[in-house]
Amino acid sequence: MSEVERPPPRLPWDPPDNFKKRVPDGDNRERLVCDDCQFVLYQNPKIVAGSVVTWEDKILLARRAIEPRKGYWTLPAGYMEIGETAEQAAQREAIEEACATIEIDRLLAVYSIARIGQVQIMYRARLASPDIACGPESAEVGLFRWDEIPWENLAFPTVVWALAHFHQTRGISEFATFSNPTGDLARMWPPRKPAGV
Amino acid sequence: MSEVERPPPRLPWDPPDNFKKRVPDGDNRERLVCDDCQFVLYQNPKIVAGSVVTWEDKILLARRAIEPRKGYWTLPAGYMEIGETAEQAAQREAIEEACATIEIDRLLAVYSIARIGQVQIMYRARLASPDIACGPESAEVGLFRWDEIPWENLAFPTVVWALAHFHQTRGISEFATFSNPTGDLARMWPPRKPAGV
Ligand SMILES: [Zn+2]
Ligand SMILES: [Zn+2]
Repeated sequence: MSEVERPPPRLPWDPPDNFKKRVPDGDNRERLVCDDCQFVLYQNPKIVAGSVVTWEDKILLARRAIEPRKGYWTLPAGYMEIGETAEQAAQREAIEEACATIEIDRLLAVYSIARIGQVQIMYRARLASPDIACGPESAEVGLFRWDEIPWENLAFPTVVWALAHFHQTRGISEFATFSNPTGDLARMWPPRKPAGV
Repeated sequence: MSEVERPPPRLPWDPPDNFKKRVPDGDNRERLVCDDCQFVLYQNPKIVAGSVVTWEDKILLARRAIEPRKGYWTLPAGYMEIGETAEQAAQREAIEEACATIEIDRLLAVYSIARIGQVQIMYRARLASPDIACGPESAEVGLFRWDEIPWENLAFPTVVWALAHFHQTRGISEFATFSNPTGDLARMWPPRKPAGV
């Protein structure tokens, strides 16, 4: 509430000061260009791959051990790397964050978060076994029945979206992939239980 | 056939020589790090957004005026930018490449091309009007009936995939989004008409 606005610390992936905004030759929008060597730093949207993973009627959640939203619960998901498919990225993230081996069922949702240049590719998946444990980015992992989900302690609105969309597919094997919700579900900050789920 | 292998020309987005591969602190894989200022150049998979666009029973294709695959036919698609949704990126690319205003129907496919770090998000869409024209990256645009598609002159295997998957959804309003094909359709280099479509 009373948190003071301060400049964020410099992160290793923040471009250094020798990068200036200008439109490179043959392009039609501003990019970050190095003053010294003219290297153009194209900043593209990033892909997050993740999953809503179940074991019987329970859903896998992990409590974040890192910022942002440290201490809040999230679905296993993270940045896709070059050299893997979106499915492989979702499987790797489940291993890294919850030591969970998952079997992907099908594509649940593709969400665009335009403001921060992010696309989230979320799968519906099953645990291969109920053996789960914390990875380095998790403080706690758990399997939650629907009525046990800590809605107000979820990390991000997209976690609410994915859970609500997943819930609509229960017992359905073929369904159309969801995209950004509209209406009340579109406004899930701060996270809370959406109406009607 | 007899094309000589030569080093590709330096492109503005190729990292300069002061970037060296090493594992940054707190990371677990090699990245390109600037020797001078320790800036970490994270190279992430890139997102291509595009569409299979129809007008009545015809499909919109554009002949590429630029490399790679100059002179070959493709679907309107291109790199998504920060600040737009995947749907908006697909709409923008249709305008840029074919001066085509499109109405997106639904998500057709999500393809991962792991080797080159690319995810393609392809929509099924309709032309708002049959007015199409070349944009700067197209040498020709056209509307093709299914039996007129120039299969062997298509630019990329993913164009074949998207057309074949689109064909399976004709007359179907709700369908499960496709991902990378298996079997014969997975091997569409050089492009050709797949069996059974
Ligand atoms: Zn430089
Ligand atoms: Zn530097």
